[in-house]
Amino acid sequence: MKIYETRTAPNPRRVRIFLAEKNIDVEYVQLDLQKGENMSSQMRAKNPIGKVPVLELDDGNCISETVAICRYFEEVQPAPPLFGTSPLERARIEMWQRQVEFGLMMQIGMCFQHTTGYFKDRMTPIKEYGEEAGKIATSYLKQLERQLAENEFIAGDSFSIADITALCAVDFGRVVKIRISEEQSNLQRWYQQISARPSAKA
Amino acid sequence: MKIYETRTAPNPRRVRIFLAEKNIDVEYVQLDLQKGENMSSQMRAKNPIGKVPVLELDDGNCISETVAICRYFEEVQPAPPLFGTSPLERARIEMWQRQVEFGLMMQIGMCFQHTTGYFKDRMTPIKEYGEEAGKIATSYLKQLERQLAENEFIAGDSFSIADITALCAVDFGRVVKIRISEEQSNLQRWYQQISARPSAKA
Repeated sequence: MKIYETRTAPNPRRVRIFLAEKNIDVEYVQLDLQKGENMSSQMRAKNPIGKVPVLELDDGNCISETVAICRYFEEVQPAPPLFGTSPLERARIEMWQRQVEFGLMMQIGMCFQHTTGYFKDRMTPIKEYGEEAGKIATSYLKQLERQLAENEFIAGDSFSIADITALCAVDFGRVVKIRISEEQSNLQRWYQQISARPSAKA
Repeated sequence: MKIYETRTAPNPRRVRIFLAEKNIDVEYVQLDLQKGENMSSQMRAKNPIGKVPVLELDDGNCISETVAICRYFEEVQPAPPLFGTSPLERARIEMWQRQVEFGLMMQIGMCFQHTTGYFKDRMTPIKEYGEEAGKIATSYLKQLERQLAENEFIAGDSFSIADITALCAVDFGRVVKIRISEEQSNLQRWYQQISARPSAKA
């Protein structure tokens, strides 16, 4: 079993943290995204859309998409649960994981890709859109600040995949100067707490 | 139990089809998106980001995000399974559901929002970006055509939430003139088959 990934990219980090929380060891194979190693014919046979991370099982089956890879490991090793246990908790964690992904993670990613032109060999950067995406991300942090005023973790009482997504988004936000503000004390408290977990170093 | 939604919007339709497949009856409450009824203080108490659909349970708990609502019903009524059963199948369905959502559904949505200015009272439309998103959606249809050449359904041998997402995306694509081409015979075959299911009328 191995995972093809790129150490510096935010999505692969989500999987590494998830696996560290579950204490699962996997072999990691590094790909250079800027050189396009993720889009080789060999990698496209594993994931046709040429993105990382990709999990390759020992029988050759491949699973891509960060959350799908995490889901696989949640299914084969449920403890500790990171997607919730009861139907309501599972739905609530999925809701928060998605809202954080769409409202923060993706917006920061779009801001990065469209304002820096990092992948301009394979997409058309539109600077104005990148700047708009950055504003949406900054605005979404206010939603999280409100949620964390009343909850220890993003989806409620327990650490979940939603916290992992948010941590990786916030840390990656630095590259486009999107940060938690000093006044956002609940986000600051949450960030210190999540960053101090051993998994955050994964 | 009720679902706040908008009949003509593509995401609520995903939930209606999902529930029709599971033969679950729910009360639907209509909101006018263009008038912003989804962003009233009453609705923001149910979903702070003011989007539809929102599921309100009898105890007052609310779940938003299409896939989170579907997940809730999958958990409380597993049959027929629409998210898969084995760990590998669940991961594969999640992978396809996400790739279709990001590669097709969201791109069509961005194309619609940014080229038509339908929500220009609450967002900044950037026409050039909307056109680019439309190209990404059209390009992603080629990926699906290849996948459906070797599989009856999008995620493999069984109908799943990935097919629901793709159907709703393809149908909504008409508003921005994104369509399956005549040469995409596998997509055409799949589209006829999925559209003919009674749930597609939901």
